[in-house]
Amino acid sequence: MAAPGREFFTARTVARALAEFRPGHRTAAETVALEVGYGRVPSAEVRAGDALPGFDRSSVDGFAVRARDTFGASEAIPAYLEVTGAVRMGAAAEGRVDARQAIAVPTGGALPAGADAVVMVEHTQEAMPGTIEVVRPVAPGEGIVRRDEDVAPGAVIAFPGRPLRAHDVAMLAAAGVVAVQVHRRPSVAIVATGDEVVPPATPALRPGQVRDALSVSIGALVREAGGEPQPPLIVSDEPGALQAALERAVPGSDLIVICAGSSVGARDETATAVAALAGAEIWCHGLAIRPGKPTLLADRAGVPIIGLPGNPRSALVVFRVIGLPLVRRAGGWTAEHRSPSARARLTRDLPSAAGRLDVVQVRLRGDEAEPLFGPSALLSVLTAADGYLIVPEDANGVSAGEEVEVIVYG
Amino acid sequence: MAAPGREFFTARTVARALAEFRPGHRTAAETVALEVGYGRVPSAEVRAGDALPGFDRSSVDGFAVRARDTFGASEAIPAYLEVTGAVRMGAAAEGRVDARQAIAVPTGGALPAGADAVVMVEHTQEAMPGTIEVVRPVAPGEGIVRRDEDVAPGAVIAFPGRPLRAHDVAMLAAAGVVAVQVHRRPSVAIVATGDEVVPPATPALRPGQVRDALSVSIGALVREAGGEPQPPLIVSDEPGALQAALERAVPGSDLIVICAGSSVGARDETATAVAALAGAEIWCHGLAIRPGKPTLLADRAGVPIIGLPGNPRSALVVFRVIGLPLVRRAGGWTAEHRSPSARARLTRDLPSAAGRLDVVQVRLRGDEAEPLFGPSALLSVLTAADGYLIVPEDANGVSAGEEVEVIVYG
Repeated sequence: MAAPGREFFTARTVARALAEFRPGHRTAAETVALEVGYGRVPSAEVRAGDALPGFDRSSVDGFAVRARDTFGASEAIPAYLEVTGAVRMGAAAEGRVDARQAIAVPTGGALPAGADAVVMVEHTQEAMPGTIEVVRPVAPGEGIVRRDEDVAPGAVIAFPGRPLRAHDVAMLAAAGVVAVQVHRRPSVAIVATGDEVVPPATPALRPGQVRDALSVSIGALVREAGGEPQPPLIVSDEPGALQAALERAVPGSDLIVICAGSSVGARDETATAVAALAGAEIWCHGLAIRPGKPTLLADRAGVPIIGLPGNPRSALVVFRVIGLPLVRRAGGWTAEHRSPSARARLTRDLPSAAGRLDVVQVRLRGDEAEPLFGPSALLSVLTAADGYLIVPEDANGVSAGEEVEVIVYG
Repeated sequence: MAAPGREFFTARTVARALAEFRPGHRTAAETVALEVGYGRVPSAEVRAGDALPGFDRSSVDGFAVRARDTFGASEAIPAYLEVTGAVRMGAAAEGRVDARQAIAVPTGGALPAGADAVVMVEHTQEAMPGTIEVVRPVAPGEGIVRRDEDVAPGAVIAFPGRPLRAHDVAMLAAAGVVAVQVHRRPSVAIVATGDEVVPPATPALRPGQVRDALSVSIGALVREAGGEPQPPLIVSDEPGALQAALERAVPGSDLIVICAGSSVGARDETATAVAALAGAEIWCHGLAIRPGKPTLLADRAGVPIIGLPGNPRSALVVFRVIGLPLVRRAGGWTAEHRSPSARARLTRDLPSAAGRLDVVQVRLRGDEAEPLFGPSALLSVLTAADGYLIVPEDANGVSAGEEVEVIVYG
C-alpha cells in the first residue's frame, strides 16, 4: 500500500486512471420488463425469433398488382385492371391477384397472393365501377416491405454493454420481447466522514458544523450513471469508525465512495482505513487534477473504492470525471458515453500546468465561455456554472478567443 | 378546424411549430424529498435561509493568526508565535488569538476569535514545543472562507424552470433544504390505433398483425423528458373508438400522443376524432419534416395533442423533435435543453428540399458520419444509427465532406 501522509507518493494522471484503473467486478444479470428497460444495459445479446414485419406489407395506399400487368402503362395508354377486393388492416389478405386484376390495399396491409407490387393510389383512377386505370408502371417489389426486410429471423436486436435506446425498445417490442436480461444497477455505498458533518435535515447548525451536501448529490450522479445509491452514512473521525463502516459496506456494494473530511488528518484516515481493508489495493493516492488532487482510488476484489477530496466542489468534479465511468463500467456499460456539450469561445486566458488536468467551470453567454474561479470549498462556483471545460494533461493552458468544448450540465 | 383529407391543408414548418405551437398548460406543484429531486423542475425559486458556510472557516491546514503579526516574516527573519490551542472539527473554536499567538486549525475548521488569517502549515515550522516560526506573511482574510462567502442569507439557490443539477442538490442540502417544490411529472396518454396493432406481449402474430412497438418506446422518451407515461392503450379503427378513448384520456392527461395507423384512412380518423373533441383546435395537419409529414398538432385547453405518423420510424423521429420539447414545457421546464452531440464529416451528399426539415439517421465511424437510408417503415434504420443530423428548412442539402453536428443517441 501507499504510505499515507502529507505528500502524495502515488499521484497519477487522470488519463492513466481512466485507461488503467479498471476494477473487474460487474453486476449480475436480472430480468426486467421492457417498460422499464430504457437506459438499462443488456447483459447478453437479444436475437429476434421471427422475421419482421413477418409478412409482405404494402408501404403505400394503393392496389396490389402483378407488376408485369403495368409495364408500358402511361397517362396516354393506361393499363386497365379489374378490382376484385380490398385488404383489411390486421387481417390476412383474402383472394388472389391474377392477370389483369388488382386488390385495394392500405399502407401496412398484407400483400395478397399473386401480387408482386403495389401501385400508389395517386397513380390510378377509377375508369368505371370495379375497374381502375394505372397510369405508371411499377417494378416487381415496388410499394412493398418484404416480410424479413426490417429484421431477419435470428438477427441481433440488442447488444450487451450498450444501454437500450428508445428505438431499441421499439424493436424489442416489435419482436415480442417484453422482458430483457440486463445488468443489475450497481449498488453504491456513500460514506461521508468528519466530526463536523451532520445530516442535511439538521435544522440549525452549531458553529463548526456543516451539512452533508455531498452524499445526496453524489447519489444523484450515481443514479444518472445507472447506479443505485445506498442510504448515506455519516461516520465520525473517531479512529476505526471509517474502517468499520467500510467493512460493513463491502459485502453489498458494487462501488464504494468515501467523502473524506477536508483536513490532512481526514485524508490520512481515509487512506489508512482503505489500506486496512482485507484485499484492498490502493491504486493511487493523489490525482493530477485541479481541483481534486487529494483523490484516492483503490480496488478491493474488483470493487472500486473512491476516496473523494474533502471540498464539495472538488469532490463533485472528481466524481464526474472519474466516478461516473466507474459506475457505468460496474453496471456492464461498455459503449462510449457522450455528455451534452457546446462549442464556445473562451473569454480569457487559462494557464495550466502541463501534466495536470484542469477542470474549469464556465458560464455560457451565447457562444462565449466565461471561466469562473473561486476557492474549491465554494459550491456556488459550481451552481453559477453552465458547464465545464477540460484542459488536458498535455496542454499548457488555453488562450482567450480559442474555441473550446464545454460539457454542459444537463 | 382543418378539413381532414388526403392532402394536408395546414402543413407547417418545424421551425414554426417549435416557436409558435406552445399550449399553455403546465403541471401543478408537488413537494418531493431532495433525494429524488435531481432532474426535477422547481416550480418556485428557493432561497437560502442562513449564510453558508455559516461561520468563518479555514480553507487550509495551518494556524489561525493575526495577519499583522506575520508582516515582514521570511525564511531569514521568521515571526515567532506562541501556539495556545487547536480547533477541533465540528466544534466552535475555543480560545482567542491575541498578539503573537496562533491556534492550530484544520481545513474547514472554525476560525477562532481574534484571528483574521490562517497561515498554511507548509509555511511554518516548530521552533520549540509551543512555538512556531512563520516564514511567509499572510494578508488579512488569507486562508479563510468567510461565513457568507458561499451563499448570503436570502440568496436564490434554485431557480424555477431549470431542472436541478447534482450541484444544485448539493447546495440545497448544504442549506438544509431537504424538500423541494417541483412541477409534477406530466402525465402522458399514449393511444395506439389500428385494427392491425396488438400488444407487444402477443406471442405469435396472425398475418397482417403487428405488435405495438411505439407505445413503449414513446413512453421511454416521455420518461427521458421528465414525464410519466400512462399505461398504453390500443384502440381499433372502429368509427368513434379513438374519439371515445381521447375523451376518457383528456381529464387526467397533461399531453396526449396518438400513434395513428399508417393508412390514409387512419390519419383521417385521427384528425376527425381530435377535431370532434370539445375545445380542441388543430394547429397543423402535416409538418414539413422528412420523415414525419403526416403529423397532427392540436391544443385542447392548453394540453398538447400530438398525432404521430403511422410508421414507427417517422413517429419516433417526430416525437424526438416535436414531442420532447412539449413534454418538458408541460412539466415547467423553461431552460435550454441540450442533447449529447458530436461533430463529424459527412461521407456523402445529402440533397434536401428547401422549406422542409430533414432528419437523417447516421452511423458514426471515428469522425465520419455515414447517412443511413431505407423505407420509413423500417425500425432497423434507427437501430443501426448512432444518431441523427438535421438539415434545416433553409438549407438545400449538405455536401459530402462538410462538418455536421450529429445528435447522438444516449
